[in-house]
Amino acid sequence: MSTAAAYAVSAPDGHFEKLAIERRDLGPNDVLIDVKYAGICHSDIHTARDEWGGARYPCVPGHEIAGLVAAVGSAVTKHAVGDRVGVGCMVDSCGKCEPCLAGEEQYCIPGATMTYNTAVAPELQSNGYTMGGYSTQVVVTEGFVVGIPEGIGLDVAAPLLCAGVTLFSPLRHWNAGPGKKVAIIGMGGLGHVGVKIAAAMGAEVTVLSHSLSKQEDGKRFGAHHYYATSDKQTFRELRGKFDLILNTVSADLPIDDYLRLLALDGTLVILGLPEKPLQVKPFTIAGYRRSLAGSMIGGIAQTQEMLNFCAEHGIGAEIEVISADRIDEAYDRVVASDVRYRFVIDTATM
Amino acid sequence: MSTAAAYAVSAPDGHFEKLAIERRDLGPNDVLIDVKYAGICHSDIHTARDEWGGARYPCVPGHEIAGLVAAVGSAVTKHAVGDRVGVGCMVDSCGKCEPCLAGEEQYCIPGATMTYNTAVAPELQSNGYTMGGYSTQVVVTEGFVVGIPEGIGLDVAAPLLCAGVTLFSPLRHWNAGPGKKVAIIGMGGLGHVGVKIAAAMGAEVTVLSHSLSKQEDGKRFGAHHYYATSDKQTFRELRGKFDLILNTVSADLPIDDYLRLLALDGTLVILGLPEKPLQVKPFTIAGYRRSLAGSMIGGIAQTQEMLNFCAEHGIGAEIEVISADRIDEAYDRVVASDVRYRFVIDTATM
Repeated sequence: MSTAAAYAVSAPDGHFEKLAIERRDLGPNDVLIDVKYAGICHSDIHTARDEWGGARYPCVPGHEIAGLVAAVGSAVTKHAVGDRVGVGCMVDSCGKCEPCLAGEEQYCIPGATMTYNTAVAPELQSNGYTMGGYSTQVVVTEGFVVGIPEGIGLDVAAPLLCAGVTLFSPLRHWNAGPGKKVAIIGMGGLGHVGVKIAAAMGAEVTVLSHSLSKQEDGKRFGAHHYYATSDKQTFRELRGKFDLILNTVSADLPIDDYLRLLALDGTLVILGLPEKPLQVKPFTIAGYRRSLAGSMIGGIAQTQEMLNFCAEHGIGAEIEVISADRIDEAYDRVVASDVRYRFVIDTATM
Repeated sequence: MSTAAAYAVSAPDGHFEKLAIERRDLGPNDVLIDVKYAGICHSDIHTARDEWGGARYPCVPGHEIAGLVAAVGSAVTKHAVGDRVGVGCMVDSCGKCEPCLAGEEQYCIPGATMTYNTAVAPELQSNGYTMGGYSTQVVVTEGFVVGIPEGIGLDVAAPLLCAGVTLFSPLRHWNAGPGKKVAIIGMGGLGHVGVKIAAAMGAEVTVLSHSLSKQEDGKRFGAHHYYATSDKQTFRELRGKFDLILNTVSADLPIDDYLRLLALDGTLVILGLPEKPLQVKPFTIAGYRRSLAGSMIGGIAQTQEMLNFCAEHGIGAEIEVISADRIDEAYDRVVASDVRYRFVIDTATM
C-alpha cells in the first residue's frame, strides 16, 4: 500500500477536504500514475452530491485524469516510467463478454469498473470502492491506461478522457465527415469539444444553443452555423436539415422538436441523461426513418484513437485551471453554467 | 373518362355500398388496371371511419391492389396489356426531391400522392381526390405500377403491396440476415408476413405476441421462437437479445420494456403509429447504444425487389378471400383481431 493525497467529500452536502487515501501495491499489470490534472465533469457533481443515489463516502471523484507514469508492474509492456498517460471513466471490465471482446468495454455486460464509486475487492482499493482522479496518484491496470501524444498539454488533454471520447465515439459511429450535416445541442463542457472534433472530421457543424451568447466562441472552435433554440424560428428554418444531432444537454428538452430537424435516415443521439423519459411522437420518426439513439463514452481503443486524432488536429479542451481548494466553488459554477468550458484541477496544489 | 364499379362509404359511420366512379382517360404514361384483388389494411379502416381526421367522402379505400393490365398509354414501356401488376400505398410523388431521386418516394418532401384520400387535380380523378383499390379498375402512372412475378397468386400477392413492403423495407435497411436475431412484435396482417420474409432472409426470428394462441402458425411461417408478452418472464429472459425488433402493433405498448430486449447497437423500429408519444428512458438507449427508429412502407424499386424476393421464396400472405358485400363485417373482424391473417376482396363480386 502507498498513500496519496486526495480531495474528498464526506456527505451529499459536504465540502471538499484534503484526505490521505491508500492506493494498492502494483500488481504485475498495474501502472502507478502521478496525476497532474483532473477535469471536473458534471457526473462528478451528481455523484458527490448523491443526486443519482448510491454514492459512497468519503467520495473522491474524477475520471478525466492526465499524468505521468511513476512506476509499472513486472508484466507491463504498454507503458513505461515517464510516459504521458490518461485514464477516463473506466479502470477495468470483465474482458470476456461480447462488448469487451469488441473493444466496447463501456458496454461490458457484467458492468465495467468505473473510475470512482464502484465496488471493488479491498485488495484493489482498501476501502472497498474505487476512488478517482482528484488525487495525486492512481493505480490502474495497463489495459485501461491510454497514452497522451506529445503536442497536447496534459491540462487541456484531461477533459478529453471523458468529454472528448463521449463526443468522438458517436461522431465516428454515425460517420460524421465531409458532406455530413452535424448539429451539437449545447455548447458546454461536452459540446464545445464536440464542435472542435466534428469540424476537424470535415462535417458541416451547427451549434444549437439556448442563446447566442457563445456564438463567437462556437465559430472559433469550427462551427459553421450557430442558432438560438430560444428562437422558435430556428425550429422552422432547420426542419429536416441534419444527418446527425448530438444532444449534450442533460436538462429535459422537447426532444420531438429536435427530432424533426433530422433529414431522411438521420439520427439524434442522447449523450446526457435527462431525468424524465423522452417523449417521441411515432409519426416524427416514421416520417423520415429517423432514429433516436443513445451513446455512452467510448471504448479504450477508441479513446486512444480520439487522443491521437486530437493531437493531430491540435484539439484540446478550453479550460480554467484551478487549485484543489476551489473545487466547491467550481462545482457551483458548473451547475450555474458559469464556466468556459471545463474546470481542471492542478494536483500540484494538493 | 371511364366508369368503374367501386365500394365506398359515405360517412364515418356509414356502410360500404356499391358506387360507380369515374377513372381518368389514359395519359401517355398511364396504365389501366383491371383490379382482381384488393387487401384490407387497418389503415383503410382508420380512414373510412375518419379516425385519423381528414377523410373525404365518398371514400373508396384500398392500397393493396393486384390485377392485370387492361390498357396502356402511348408512352408506356414498363408494362404491357395482360401483365400481372400491383399498386401499393402511393400512386405518384414529386420525382425531384432528394428522397424521390434516391428511390425513397414514400419520404417525398412535398408528400407522395397516396392511393386514396389524397387531393389531386380533377383531371387525375374527377372528384378531386384519389380513390383506391376497392374497385374494378384503377388508372396509375406507370412508375408506380410494379410487376407481380409468376409464381405468386394475385390473391396472396395483394397484401404484399403494403404489408409486405412495410416489413421488407426495414428488414433490408437494418440488414436482417444470417447471424442476426430479429423479433417481430405482433403476428397480425403485418407481422405474419414479416416472420415469413425475415426467416427467408436467413435471420433467427422470434415472435413476441400477446399470447401463444398463434404459436403453431408462427412456427409454420418460419419463426424459430415464440414468446407471450403477457408473461413478464419473457422480458427478463430476452433482455439484450435482439439486433432488430420490428413493432407492428399500433396499440400503445410500454416501448421501454421492449427496447431493453435489444443487444448492443440494436434497433427497434416502429411500423404502426400508436396514438400516444413513445416514452423512452434515456438510460435504456444509452446503456447499449440502442436506437428507436421509424419506417414507412418502402420505395417503388424496393417494392418490386420485395415481390421478386417473395416469388423466389414462395411467400404470399395468409388470406381469407371475401366478396365485396362483406367489407363491413371484415372491418369489424379486423378491429377484433379476428382474421388469420388478411382479408382480400375478390373484385369479381362487385
